[in-house]
Amino acid sequence: MGVIEKQRITALQTLLREAGIDYYIVPTADYHNSEYVSDYFKMREFLSGFTGSAGTLVVSGKEAGLWTDGRYFVQAESELEGSGIVLYRMHEENVPTIKEYLEKNVEEGQTIGFDGRVVDAFFGKELEEAFGGKNVTLAYDRDIAVQLWQDRPAMPVSRIWVVPEESCGMGVTEKLGKVREKMAEEGAAHLLLSKLDDIMWLCNIRANDVECNPVALSYAFISREKAVLFIQSAALTEETRGYLAENGVTCEEYDHAAAYLKSCEIDGKVWCSCADISYMLYKLVQDRTELVDKKNPTELMKAVKNPVELEHIRECYIRDSAALTKFLFWMKENAGKTAMDELSVAAKLDGMRAEIPGFLDLSFPTISAYKSNAAMAHYSATEEHFSRIDAEGFYLVDSGGQYEGGTTDVTRTIALGAVTDEMKLHFTRVACAMLRLADARFLYGCTGRNLDIIARAPLWECGLDYKHGTGHGIGYILNVHEGPHSLRWQYKQETPETKLEEGMIVSDEPGMYVQDSHGIRTENIVEIVKEEKNEYGQFMGFRHLTYVPIDLDAIDTQHMEPSDIRKLNAYHERVYEKLAPYFEGAELELLKKATRAV
Amino acid sequence: MGVIEKQRITALQTLLREAGIDYYIVPTADYHNSEYVSDYFKMREFLSGFTGSAGTLVVSGKEAGLWTDGRYFVQAESELEGSGIVLYRMHEENVPTIKEYLEKNVEEGQTIGFDGRVVDAFFGKELEEAFGGKNVTLAYDRDIAVQLWQDRPAMPVSRIWVVPEESCGMGVTEKLGKVREKMAEEGAAHLLLSKLDDIMWLCNIRANDVECNPVALSYAFISREKAVLFIQSAALTEETRGYLAENGVTCEEYDHAAAYLKSCEIDGKVWCSCADISYMLYKLVQDRTELVDKKNPTELMKAVKNPVELEHIRECYIRDSAALTKFLFWMKENAGKTAMDELSVAAKLDGMRAEIPGFLDLSFPTISAYKSNAAMAHYSATEEHFSRIDAEGFYLVDSGGQYEGGTTDVTRTIALGAVTDEMKLHFTRVACAMLRLADARFLYGCTGRNLDIIARAPLWECGLDYKHGTGHGIGYILNVHEGPHSLRWQYKQETPETKLEEGMIVSDEPGMYVQDSHGIRTENIVEIVKEEKNEYGQFMGFRHLTYVPIDLDAIDTQHMEPSDIRKLNAYHERVYEKLAPYFEGAELELLKKATRAV
Repeated sequence: MGVIEKQRITALQTLLREAGIDYYIVPTADYHNSEYVSDYFKMREFLSGFTGSAGTLVVSGKEAGLWTDGRYFVQAESELEGSGIVLYRMHEENVPTIKEYLEKNVEEGQTIGFDGRVVDAFFGKELEEAFGGKNVTLAYDRDIAVQLWQDRPAMPVSRIWVVPEESCGMGVTEKLGKVREKMAEEGAAHLLLSKLDDIMWLCNIRANDVECNPVALSYAFISREKAVLFIQSAALTEETRGYLAENGVTCEEYDHAAAYLKSCEIDGKVWCSCADISYMLYKLVQDRTELVDKKNPTELMKAVKNPVELEHIRECYIRDSAALTKFLFWMKENAGKTAMDELSVAAKLDGMRAEIPGFLDLSFPTISAYKSNAAMAHYSATEEHFSRIDAEGFYLVDSGGQYEGGTTDVTRTIALGAVTDEMKLHFTRVACAMLRLADARFLYGCTGRNLDIIARAPLWECGLDYKHGTGHGIGYILNVHEGPHSLRWQYKQETPETKLEEGMIVSDEPGMYVQDSHGIRTENIVEIVKEEKNEYGQFMGFRHLTYVPIDLDAIDTQHMEPSDIRKLNAYHERVYEKLAPYFEGAELELLKKATRAV
Repeated sequence: MGVIEKQRITALQTLLREAGIDYYIVPTADYHNSEYVSDYFKMREFLSGFTGSAGTLVVSGKEAGLWTDGRYFVQAESELEGSGIVLYRMHEENVPTIKEYLEKNVEEGQTIGFDGRVVDAFFGKELEEAFGGKNVTLAYDRDIAVQLWQDRPAMPVSRIWVVPEESCGMGVTEKLGKVREKMAEEGAAHLLLSKLDDIMWLCNIRANDVECNPVALSYAFISREKAVLFIQSAALTEETRGYLAENGVTCEEYDHAAAYLKSCEIDGKVWCSCADISYMLYKLVQDRTELVDKKNPTELMKAVKNPVELEHIRECYIRDSAALTKFLFWMKENAGKTAMDELSVAAKLDGMRAEIPGFLDLSFPTISAYKSNAAMAHYSATEEHFSRIDAEGFYLVDSGGQYEGGTTDVTRTIALGAVTDEMKLHFTRVACAMLRLADARFLYGCTGRNLDIIARAPLWECGLDYKHGTGHGIGYILNVHEGPHSLRWQYKQETPETKLEEGMIVSDEPGMYVQDSHGIRTENIVEIVKEEKNEYGQFMGFRHLTYVPIDLDAIDTQHMEPSDIRKLNAYHERVYEKLAPYFEGAELELLKKATRAV
């Protein structure tokens, strides 16, 4: 084990020496900083043998090191064995970050290399700053390692399809108009988009180039008069090309983007978000003109769902909720009776979703975690490592689908048999957390940093916490995680906050994790709605989109305020109303029981 | 009425014409942007006749305009009558800000003048930016209007006194050491302090130059080796001068500061906070070297009270609480029986405070507001306008003292007779708001923006709000309002937030105001304490410093959760414990009754 990788690292070291590169960085990213990386872009995995979804390899003449986070320490240790690659455990004490490592080791006159297409401008600029005064060269214009990768998979390419206006609610021409208004406000003559979901939203198209993200590899370059979409020609048909042309979007080859940007007419500033664009493109644009470095205007526009999208989302979520509820009933009925394990039940759930009309794909790989496995917030069962499920303890399932009517994301934890008082306390407090936040009323102007504490308070009161954010935005037939809004409490002065707007949708997903014991997460998606407007301002609130019972077998009402009990009963009453049309016979009886008042 | 002012404006216009100044700005400020402005600095009042505590006069050849806020519209309208001065109602629709007014009116080649000593660098820089490209001159180095003011009062000067180390807990030498550490961290060779409470804290001195603020007019210039205090020599005795010298602080004349800064040795960057320094000094320093524009390092150090200070504060607050409680009992017993009005009862309360050992002064003018007067958050009864008090409705009193053991600030609202159900709802929700926030447990790292919503939620739930912040820091024998922390919810990207630290003290003062009807505010001061530290992090909490009963006659428990009732009872139990030693006989019986469990 690790022998091939050791050879690959040695071969890479030879290439680096020949190229005059002293330190070479191989991150885990495609050209667009997508959440999932398709096989074509798995260079870091190819070189190191480490298969985790996050990690960066740094190779020098002296050493090869792999940086990854706590989710992957065990896996990386085992997969790196024999490769000679040193594991750097990120965020542990005395472990340097990559930047710190480079600052310590790179000497005057040396060269740091990386493929500038897979490193974002933000990190590239950090390196520039760190080594600005030090006579260190950044060689970012070549993928040195690629010649070692003989059997590299093909670049993904799928046919795009057009989201009809009765589904997405707004035409491309109108969207382009709004984007150009924003460009004018910022004094930008051009907008360069590299963020795939932003491009899909703008062009009302979808595809299948990234796992679970219905997007096509592409760039868009919007000018005052012109809009160019760089996309693989195999992704297009005459029809889709025609649709885009009708809407004022010209198509160019995906891999011509850089050449185009080098030579096209530039008559003013170019707006490009450094957090979302590759360092390569950033340098290229920077060479030509002044930049406006702000979040893409498309990000906020995409986040605020329009009434047509919302109508589809509401309906889609009810069908998705019904399927998950049936699955959870089946789990509770059959645990201990039927042989089941984390993988088999996930497959069953995925199959149930696939039968929902309009189903396209999962929105992310289903997290199916039993007992202590659920204590790892990003646990994923594999063929090599998964647990059998019995009639005891908690089972957590975090899952979602891509449908013609929207993108879903929902987590429930259920008791499959006896659970301890402590587990009930945790479960009950998490349920209160989710319900209190969903029930919050707040003045317009609040951001997620104001509201996060509403969900955390029931846990903080008990000296407990969950080490993840409370909520993220969700796309419409797009990425399951999207910005610019989120629900978090930590303060970072450099991170701008986004006010919560009517029509945004956001997850509400508090949890509680006890190592080696259990993990609980209860996640609904809620939409942001306007409530009364009076002399104090515009009040806002949330409305549930997810309608799945919260397992009453794990609720202990002594840990709830009367108002929490009212919220739970009111939610369950609505769950019954919304789901009953999809249930009958014995299942309807189960639904009645699962949503009874406590 | 207004005749003298009209003449003064005309005379000023003549002087401006002679000086070649087209627009002249007269703000309401001393040289240190103090919260209260002593008579010497009331130039705006002298010129305009308007006596309110906030307002800015702008005079040009065409017009004189006075900008003030909603608190003063009625007063300003009446006081400006006959002066020919136009009232600009700030924050009303279509009313330009001063900057907007100038941008609209000032023409190419014109000159804007102001006394650069009473305009802060922040505003001066805003003007620079607004008129930077426009060939407009800023003439900031002369006080043009001063020659009109024949009978100007003297500049205030009071003898400074030294806070003994057994009271302030840390010597000047140690404080200077900490400040110099921070200067080194920021790469600053010098620190210029103009903020009076920061200077007092650093030098362990107090004085009486500003109303209610126990400070001396002064500047401090700290270098690596040297510390210079610019202060009026009449403020010093041989003894205090000796004390400062022993601690490495050299004294120079207050009005030599500018000359000193022009000629002293500067061997690196100068740290000065543009929000706290005058534009004049800013320009002067900027001419000589590079600036570090950050909040004064003294601000955070001063905000985190040390154990010695906290011990004094805790005791001081109990004596202050006892006095207020006795006053409130007297009010409730005598309203309707004895003749009383807002001014007479305030005088009584101020007198009761003055009898507390160690009393020095009020920490701000007592706000004594009956019925609808309390709906104005900054109401102040005057000899011309005050209300008689009867045995009905709410009475609100916001008050505090300066003592040798600390600075207090507390607000209570009491029912003097029948109050409506709506008033009880408001009162009860405000009480819940104060108690919930004081009872909150939170992870270290939270800022006031995370926590503010805990106090607002009980009101927001009902579609209500109070249009002021929830809390501010408080000095130690210093200003009743201090930073850098606060409890507010609104987001401003440019305003950095401060994490809440153990030892900070902060007000917790939700309220509810209904125009023409009533005003409620319940304000405790709380200290920030560490609670358990576990795998989730360092938990923090608050501890009450204020122990004054919350009027149970206005509490309606149907608007409370069981946990709110527990909090109220627990608070009252502690109020009884803390105050009982100061009560006896019938008053002790009243205390028992006022703190009974509900």
